[in-house]
Amino acid sequence: MNSQRLSLMKSLMLTHGTDQIIICDPSTIFYLTGKWFSPGERLLVLLVSQTGGDLLINNELFPLTEELGVPVQLYKDTDPYLQILTDHLKGSVIAVDKTWPARFLLPLLGLNQDKTFILGSVIADGARLLKDEAEKDLMRHASSLNDSAMTLLAQRVTVGATETELEQQLLSIYEELGTDGISFSPIIAFGANGADPHHETDESLLKGGDSIIFDIGCKKDSYSSDMTRTYFFQEVSEEGREVYEIVKEANLRAISKVKPGNRFSDVDQAARDYITHKGYGAYFTHRTGHGIGIDVHEPEDVSAINDHVLEPGMIFSIEPGIYLPGKLGVRIEDLVLVTNDGCEVLNEVSKDLTVLGQVD
Amino acid sequence: MNSQRLSLMKSLMLTHGTDQIIICDPSTIFYLTGKWFSPGERLLVLLVSQTGGDLLINNELFPLTEELGVPVQLYKDTDPYLQILTDHLKGSVIAVDKTWPARFLLPLLGLNQDKTFILGSVIADGARLLKDEAEKDLMRHASSLNDSAMTLLAQRVTVGATETELEQQLLSIYEELGTDGISFSPIIAFGANGADPHHETDESLLKGGDSIIFDIGCKKDSYSSDMTRTYFFQEVSEEGREVYEIVKEANLRAISKVKPGNRFSDVDQAARDYITHKGYGAYFTHRTGHGIGIDVHEPEDVSAINDHVLEPGMIFSIEPGIYLPGKLGVRIEDLVLVTNDGCEVLNEVSKDLTVLGQVD
Repeated sequence: MNSQRLSLMKSLMLTHGTDQIIICDPSTIFYLTGKWFSPGERLLVLLVSQTGGDLLINNELFPLTEELGVPVQLYKDTDPYLQILTDHLKGSVIAVDKTWPARFLLPLLGLNQDKTFILGSVIADGARLLKDEAEKDLMRHASSLNDSAMTLLAQRVTVGATETELEQQLLSIYEELGTDGISFSPIIAFGANGADPHHETDESLLKGGDSIIFDIGCKKDSYSSDMTRTYFFQEVSEEGREVYEIVKEANLRAISKVKPGNRFSDVDQAARDYITHKGYGAYFTHRTGHGIGIDVHEPEDVSAINDHVLEPGMIFSIEPGIYLPGKLGVRIEDLVLVTNDGCEVLNEVSKDLTVLGQVD
Repeated sequence: MNSQRLSLMKSLMLTHGTDQIIICDPSTIFYLTGKWFSPGERLLVLLVSQTGGDLLINNELFPLTEELGVPVQLYKDTDPYLQILTDHLKGSVIAVDKTWPARFLLPLLGLNQDKTFILGSVIADGARLLKDEAEKDLMRHASSLNDSAMTLLAQRVTVGATETELEQQLLSIYEELGTDGISFSPIIAFGANGADPHHETDESLLKGGDSIIFDIGCKKDSYSSDMTRTYFFQEVSEEGREVYEIVKEANLRAISKVKPGNRFSDVDQAARDYITHKGYGAYFTHRTGHGIGIDVHEPEDVSAINDHVLEPGMIFSIEPGIYLPGKLGVRIEDLVLVTNDGCEVLNEVSKDLTVLGQVD
């Protein structure tokens, strides 16, 4: 168990009046223990108690070969595992990890009608939200590899390329760079495909004048990267240029608001107001960003309705976009780390408008 | 919407005194609508009501291009989506899909303290448990492809092979056969590795006298296969032969109990009692089987504590095993379909003891 992270979590439990937390998310268990579990549909719980007495409850099919610094209780498939968990619930207010499924949660509520169950996000996510120094370095490293991948990928854009071919190129690049693979299915979208923010890479052929969205991320040492750049191929229309410069300015304005004391909504507003002011507000259809760390999508949302205040150690994406149906899409995304007096941008690939494959 | 499957689910809702069910499992939504969704961390709910008024609640980022036969309510990331769902909860007893995470469930309970929430497994899983004719054919087809793959894989076992190499061979075979990929990470385990039922395929080198476990499954047209065969390489020890024949007989005895009216526990008992009688009870460390369909692991468990009664249309695995630490493992697994008067075994690969790569 990482004692510093465990202490952080227990201090958050105290703040939120919680006696124990039922942790089941393998990412959070990795965060605390340094070990990945894949329990499948079976119950896996790390029970963390405010006053000590932490316990890992694990199916005997997945025996541990190492010492994790926490007692382990094994159960068989035929054991009443929710009763075993209940026997270890000592407090009156129990937090539950946000990912715990109803098939465990509803029966546990039935067994413990005298207790109050609350959502554990403020504790588990709250701790993971504030990256420690080791995590910051891992995040910097993953984004540095992602920068290299973006640069190499842009060089491989050629006449006749399909989205799928470039996706294959990206996977090779990630392997050559020594990453641990992708942190999400890359979005590679040409021209009008880019107008769907969640376009699935397909066999579309690159055409002159197309915008090219590369929304890509790799994992390295269990931490995630995520970055978007938009290029143009051979030429760029006036509209493409106008939209690009607006999105770039929105990205920069949002980043300029990233400092302790500002709210997530302030960051969103900086991007959204500028795009709206330029007349494209209706075409910026998603939040400005999301937290990231071990998982590629972590709290908090950078959105208009999130008034939580930024604190040093938070890492999230800034990814405004404009999507013109039937025409093109532009999105520019960086990861930022909140520092004591501003932020550190983890991505260094140029955001200047770039036309690839220009015919001289 | 598949009206036959929807009717089956609504009749189960009536049986269990439930007014509405909140379905979120993409597999169950596919089962009812024929469409796969990947909502990521966003809320996706198919609300099915006993008295009509079904509704799909979906994030506007994932617009539908086809007509699913159910009204769709889109929401934005900034909308109060749990309140939107609450506005559509009309009854007093609401079932909740087993996979719905605490981050949605606990706040929904807070918004609806006048309602009773129950686990929806008896309804959603209950419907999917009884495969219709179209599903039976898809399951037969997936298992037939898996049979072909097992036969081809056994032919590729050669001196000097590693587990990882055979895994790569298997992936190629699945591609050549036109499957849609694997239904789970294959377990390929040589010799003592096979004594861990959940061994992860590694670089181990095949040695003469090794047992070889192939626990493999593919997907085809959204349905899953899953089968295990155990071979020996070049030679087989007396102990290996003895254990093999015991496991084979346990597999056959369990299958002979598969008919309507018998209980899952009867099937488990047939395998377990025989292995125990032969003195290896302590080395058969898991349940005898599990349900399968769209997902590779579905209810119900074929285990000692499951007294539910078998009904025609159920499909599950029969996979007894004996695991001798430091020595070898033997597991023999078939899928079976409960028929009106017995069962149909979906796998046809021989279960006779087979020694591969014999030196003549």
